[in-house]
Amino acid sequence: MTSHVSLEGSQAAPDLPTFADIEAAARRIDGVAHRTPVVTSRTADKLTGGTLFFKCENLQRAGAFKFRGALNAIAALSPASKKAGVVAFSSGNHAQAIAYAGMLLDVPTTIVMPSDAPAMKVAATRGYGAEVVFYDRYSEDREAIGRRIADEGGRSVVPPFDHPDVIAGQGTAALELIQEVGPLDMLLVCLGGGGLLSGSALAAAEVSPGCRVIGVEPKAGDDGRRSMAEDRIVKIPVPVSIADGALTQALGQITFEIIRRDVAEIVTVSDAMLVDTMRFFVERLKLVVEPTGCLAAAAALQGVVPVIGKRVGVILSGGNIDPGTLASLLTPARA
Amino acid sequence: MTSHVSLEGSQAAPDLPTFADIEAAARRIDGVAHRTPVVTSRTADKLTGGTLFFKCENLQRAGAFKFRGALNAIAALSPASKKAGVVAFSSGNHAQAIAYAGMLLDVPTTIVMPSDAPAMKVAATRGYGAEVVFYDRYSEDREAIGRRIADEGGRSVVPPFDHPDVIAGQGTAALELIQEVGPLDMLLVCLGGGGLLSGSALAAAEVSPGCRVIGVEPKAGDDGRRSMAEDRIVKIPVPVSIADGALTQALGQITFEIIRRDVAEIVTVSDAMLVDTMRFFVERLKLVVEPTGCLAAAAALQGVVPVIGKRVGVILSGGNIDPGTLASLLTPARA
Repeated sequence: MTSHVSLEGSQAAPDLPTFADIEAAARRIDGVAHRTPVVTSRTADKLTGGTLFFKCENLQRAGAFKFRGALNAIAALSPASKKAGVVAFSSGNHAQAIAYAGMLLDVPTTIVMPSDAPAMKVAATRGYGAEVVFYDRYSEDREAIGRRIADEGGRSVVPPFDHPDVIAGQGTAALELIQEVGPLDMLLVCLGGGGLLSGSALAAAEVSPGCRVIGVEPKAGDDGRRSMAEDRIVKIPVPVSIADGALTQALGQITFEIIRRDVAEIVTVSDAMLVDTMRFFVERLKLVVEPTGCLAAAAALQGVVPVIGKRVGVILSGGNIDPGTLASLLTPARA
Repeated sequence: MTSHVSLEGSQAAPDLPTFADIEAAARRIDGVAHRTPVVTSRTADKLTGGTLFFKCENLQRAGAFKFRGALNAIAALSPASKKAGVVAFSSGNHAQAIAYAGMLLDVPTTIVMPSDAPAMKVAATRGYGAEVVFYDRYSEDREAIGRRIADEGGRSVVPPFDHPDVIAGQGTAALELIQEVGPLDMLLVCLGGGGLLSGSALAAAEVSPGCRVIGVEPKAGDDGRRSMAEDRIVKIPVPVSIADGALTQALGQITFEIIRRDVAEIVTVSDAMLVDTMRFFVERLKLVVEPTGCLAAAAALQGVVPVIGKRVGVILSGGNIDPGTLASLLTPARA
């Protein structure tokens, strides 16, 4: 897959990853990424009339599915590229995932973060041994900075979603889920840049043919739904939602190609639905799921997607939420 | 084990369950109780210097380990006793566990609850199909009421901890843990009435000989520690602690006999330690663990029990906490 590590975006027909790439990723991350548990809930099934299988990527290392793609992308590099190191720009789960995977594989990592990033996130990223480089988000272009750092040191940039090895890594979550519980009628997956959704769709198409794969994005950030409707990548202004992992403005070229081919539908949910869903997980499943991680589940639990009589996979994508923020979202006045 | 279902307490030499009873319980609950996941945390290991294995009974059905003992005790009844039904008195996890297990095994259940029990708990118990009978906690004796109901209908009373089948059922959690991760140097278990601790000690003595089993109780309710020190069952006034599942006033006769024989030590932790531990689980492991469920973990994470260089099993006993209570405990001002 190293042939894919090209940084140039091509205008048409990008080289799409395949199911074989997901299988290769599964072998590569085996024993390093957690094989996360699948939980079921009688209450959720009664509430929806379906049979729901929650894949707990909130219990993944570094707290989100992002670790799978980051680990796979770094592990797939040549020995020389590993030695040179990797660069990522993100202040969220992708940065932590890259830093953590780099530490475990002994590959140096540089994370480009806004200078006003929360101190806790900076400390956590440094705690994984990453070098943190700051930029001013109002006057500087993080991609340009990242690319300069990469060019200077012969380092590889690992983008957060639009990369075949990242997509293949993310696809291993759905692969594990279907291997564990058997074929599904439907698979609900959150949608930001589309790495998890496109990887999941690739996996489902192979191991559960006929499974309807549905992307779920925040109502305020429905670029994915619009892109499907217009059959082109629609770019929107930075959306405002508590689903802070799905605030991307546009799908990637690779993720869009896979999504338009393999995803049945894209739906949206409101922030209020996400809060209700987060409370449901705390109260009934004893799981902390971040707002973005609640997107897919909210679509089923809040009736956005009817699931009566269906076997439905639901990916809980992550659990990284500050306890204070969780507390304020759980406080009844906010309900 | 039905020979044990006698309700009379004997003054000396109660009939103690054995490891064979735990093996029988494991077979009985197989496929009905969840085989809960074991999670590990690099952060917890770095913090303590040990290698910690958290057994997630907060992800057990009905939200706590109690389901194991309840299910085993009901499943072990004779067909006639099953038909007559069971009675339990509790407003907490044991009641829910009995009601839920009864529903799954098609055994009628009656739960005796104080008339001022939270409406949510009453509704949840009824939701599992149990009949709820109220008593006035200031003027009536719940045990007398429970016993009367039992006598009238030929029903069996399943007590919350001091019962061989309950203890054997609870022991299956430690058995699964050790089967999954291998022998342990130490096993930390919360202590209320001693059902989980005595069952865990029985299991560890057989499958991980030499493992030091340690009970952990709230500082305000240290009847277990005192009982060990005085080598007799010490009864204390109702303690005040946020660990509401460990507010028992005294160990049982059976649990005490096993604990004095097989448990190495009993330690205590403060409520402040429990709050810190609960926040740690939310923030780092993405798990909701109720205060009582944090007892064992707090002993390791807060340095009460040194675990450096040791392989340590930690049972997270339950996750039943109201989201509003969780929110208020997580709010920084309370830290």
